[in-house]
Amino acid sequence: MDKNKLKQAVYEANMELVNKGLVIYTFGNVSQIDREHNIVAIKPSGVDYDKLKPNDIVLLDLDGNIIDGNLRPSSDTKTHLVLYREFVQIRAVVHTHSRYATAFAQAGLSVKCLGTTHADYFYGDVPCTGVIKDEMISDDYEKQTGNLIADTFKNRNIDYNVVKACLVACHGPFSWGADAKEAVFISTVLEEVAKANCLTQLLNPSALSIKKTLLDKHYLRKHGSCAYYGQG
Amino acid sequence: MDKNKLKQAVYEANMELVNKGLVIYTFGNVSQIDREHNIVAIKPSGVDYDKLKPNDIVLLDLDGNIIDGNLRPSSDTKTHLVLYREFVQIRAVVHTHSRYATAFAQAGLSVKCLGTTHADYFYGDVPCTGVIKDEMISDDYEKQTGNLIADTFKNRNIDYNVVKACLVACHGPFSWGADAKEAVFISTVLEEVAKANCLTQLLNPSALSIKKTLLDKHYLRKHGSCAYYGQG
Amino acid sequence: MDKNKLKQAVYEANMELVNKGLVIYTFGNVSQIDREHNIVAIKPSGVDYDKLKPNDIVLLDLDGNIIDGNLRPSSDTKTHLVLYREFVQIRAVVHTHSRYATAFAQAGLSVKCLGTTHADYFYGDVPCTGVIKDEMISDDYEKQTGNLIADTFKNRNIDYNVVKACLVACHGPFSWGADAKEAVFISTVLEEVAKANCLTQLLNPSALSIKKTLLDKHYLRKHGSCAYYGQG
Amino acid sequence: MDKNKLKQAVYEANMELVNKGLVIYTFGNVSQIDREHNIVAIKPSGVDYDKLKPNDIVLLDLDGNIIDGNLRPSSDTKTHLVLYREFVQIRAVVHTHSRYATAFAQAGLSVKCLGTTHADYFYGDVPCTGVIKDEMISDDYEKQTGNLIADTFKNRNIDYNVVKACLVACHGPFSWGADAKEAVFISTVLEEVAKANCLTQLLNPSALSIKKTLLDKHYLRKHGSCAYYGQG
Repeated sequence: MDKNKLKQAVYEANMELVNKGLVIYTFGNVSQIDREHNIVAIKPSGVDYDKLKPNDIVLLDLDGNIIDGNLRPSSDTKTHLVLYREFVQIRAVVHTHSRYATAFAQAGLSVKCLGTTHADYFYGDVPCTGVIKDEMISDDYEKQTGNLIADTFKNRNIDYNVVKACLVACHGPFSWGADAKEAVFISTVLEEVAKANCLTQLLNPSALSIKKTLLDKHYLRKHGSCAYYGQG
Repeated sequence: MDKNKLKQAVYEANMELVNKGLVIYTFGNVSQIDREHNIVAIKPSGVDYDKLKPNDIVLLDLDGNIIDGNLRPSSDTKTHLVLYREFVQIRAVVHTHSRYATAFAQAGLSVKCLGTTHADYFYGDVPCTGVIKDEMISDDYEKQTGNLIADTFKNRNIDYNVVKACLVACHGPFSWGADAKEAVFISTVLEEVAKANCLTQLLNPSALSIKKTLLDKHYLRKHGSCAYYGQG
Repeated sequence: MDKNKLKQAVYEANMELVNKGLVIYTFGNVSQIDREHNIVAIKPSGVDYDKLKPNDIVLLDLDGNIIDGNLRPSSDTKTHLVLYREFVQIRAVVHTHSRYATAFAQAGLSVKCLGTTHADYFYGDVPCTGVIKDEMISDDYEKQTGNLIADTFKNRNIDYNVVKACLVACHGPFSWGADAKEAVFISTVLEEVAKANCLTQLLNPSALSIKKTLLDKHYLRKHGSCAYYGQG
Repeated sequence: MDKNKLKQAVYEANMELVNKGLVIYTFGNVSQIDREHNIVAIKPSGVDYDKLKPNDIVLLDLDGNIIDGNLRPSSDTKTHLVLYREFVQIRAVVHTHSRYATAFAQAGLSVKCLGTTHADYFYGDVPCTGVIKDEMISDDYEKQTGNLIADTFKNRNIDYNVVKACLVACHGPFSWGADAKEAVFISTVLEEVAKANCLTQLLNPSALSIKKTLLDKHYLRKHGSCAYYGQG
């Protein structure tokens, strides 16, 4: 296992959040896990993106113990760790406060699938959790935030492999993927889709989700065994 | 016929979508046809704009057979091909998911002609199609999307030479023109006009389309035999 | 009189519209007048900002006759000329289709003075004209557009020296000033003020214009004999 | 005391307002105080950010007398001075007309705490003052603007150390901090939070402030003796 390669990948994905306009200052974090060795690389807490260096990335085990690095890991680390335990096929997690996705989270609303741009990347609505309960705030808040996401997917029967993002109510978006790059990609697409969704609702408050046949067509032409999009 | 020149033109027009802020990642495609030889050059499927090279552009005949190129053509290729067959005077097609035009498409609303900026470039509303029918989704979806556009223009008696764009409901905008450059120009203007239209409706939900005399004045001072705009 | 200096000033002001994000392609024009010699320098018609050169600027007399230049002047030239005749103290005119100001024009709404940012630069609302009459469209449209602006200021008793901009209904903003630089500055501030005004109305549809005492305070601390803003 | 260092810090903070997109032209000002010597460094009045140089920064005593500098200080100087006297622990003040914060000020609305992004930086709503009274406008307006802010915090029992910004009704935002850099940071975060808040209200007009337990959790994990965010 190449620790520097893992740190570099996580560093680059963090910086890509800046390039895509999803974060300012310290408003986000990206992690990636090496599933073979169960090592998680994550952004350090409160380090400004302008000053972040590859070697600042912290390496942890799945219990949150520091394996490598001189800095404290992101304050949201426990949320990431829960997601790695609960969503066993993902290998990266991203958290941002991107504007439109955050607005939906603050509004307590899921991002409904109003068009094919959404359907191309998310196989259904991107859910918004309920508001976190007081006892979850007082008892290991960041861990409970992870549980809130995992429970939302379990209770609503949503497959985390086809809807790779969740809005935490009153908070903001989390996304995930096969690697840090994909998880950042999903964050970016979510913001784009949230913006178009918001504008759509302003233009037509009664706009409906697209029908299942169209959702299937778009999602499945890009994903799964019958996909014919891309270079295969 | 110079294949490389055609590829280069289509490559540059694709990249111009990025420059104008109309696409991210792979969210769009441009094609151009050589009407003399019936050869269509189009963006390859799922290739990120950051990595696109002129030689990646795929050449096809009007039935979609690959004439030149190692990559699969855009998954929307059949939509382009229908438009070339139905709209016999156009020589380029552009598809994007630009935010405001997509919002109108998702809202199922035409972009009404609310001002002279619109009237300078579109001789009337930019229509939004009805929602594609289930049997059209299951039977050659991309081809049927082209038919949906063509039928919308036919049924509503709209001349594709004076309104060079269409919104596909629940999906997004398509535009066309005399060459790839013009079709990208129309896409850009459509997004600009859609944004101003959206803001207008937020400020004044009862804002009306401009009157015919003003539409005529603006469109016809720029287009047709009596035009006096530009350097003639 | 230095013709090249005049052309250069008008060229630079035109390009500043691009830098400030107020225009794309050919969506605007700037002119400036030499009041001593009654020579007007204006952008040529339909020339893309990307290709505009200082020497493309056209010189005209006040009747619109070309004095110098190989290109046709802006199609809006007659509007500019009317403004120079009616507003005898101005020396520059700018026209754009900037998004928010255009949205107000399309909505048929004046930009009300909702805050001190507005009051710092406009001594009252920026008016929106009525919709141009059919006979004004058919009879020398561009000249009549100028008359519409001048009449709006006359009929509503607005001093063009303290409100240096007007929205033409269904069309967009015109602004003016002591030179091309100031007129572009006013265009930019108008767009900024229109944006804040639009957002204000979305947040609070019953937001009121600021009171006269506050308007006076802010406008007069920056303008007139009692001004104490700036370096005097 | 190093005057040049103070000027440089205030210069850089002023320019950072431009970098963050919070000001255009002359639409803002930053000051910082040396509490040991009671010397305030502030932007000169009406100097365009494009032309501002470190040595243009004006040094004043707390009564507003110029100690160093050839230019007039910002016309808002007296507002800053009142804040330094009333809020004895702050060492920098920033004023901008940033779009979303200004829209809230023009709407006469506080920026309610609708999410954790807000709670991370402001321990409660960012208040909007009442409209300034006529006698305060006629009697030393800029000083009274400072009093209006200070009184708003006093009357509503808000601690200026945990809510480091205020909207002045019909006007715009002021912020403060331990140094010019922090005050600019707060301005930037306020604009970001105001934008997300505005979008949230458009999506869900009945969106509520987050509950006290969540506000406490987020603010206190970043600030105070129990903070565990950042590198400590």
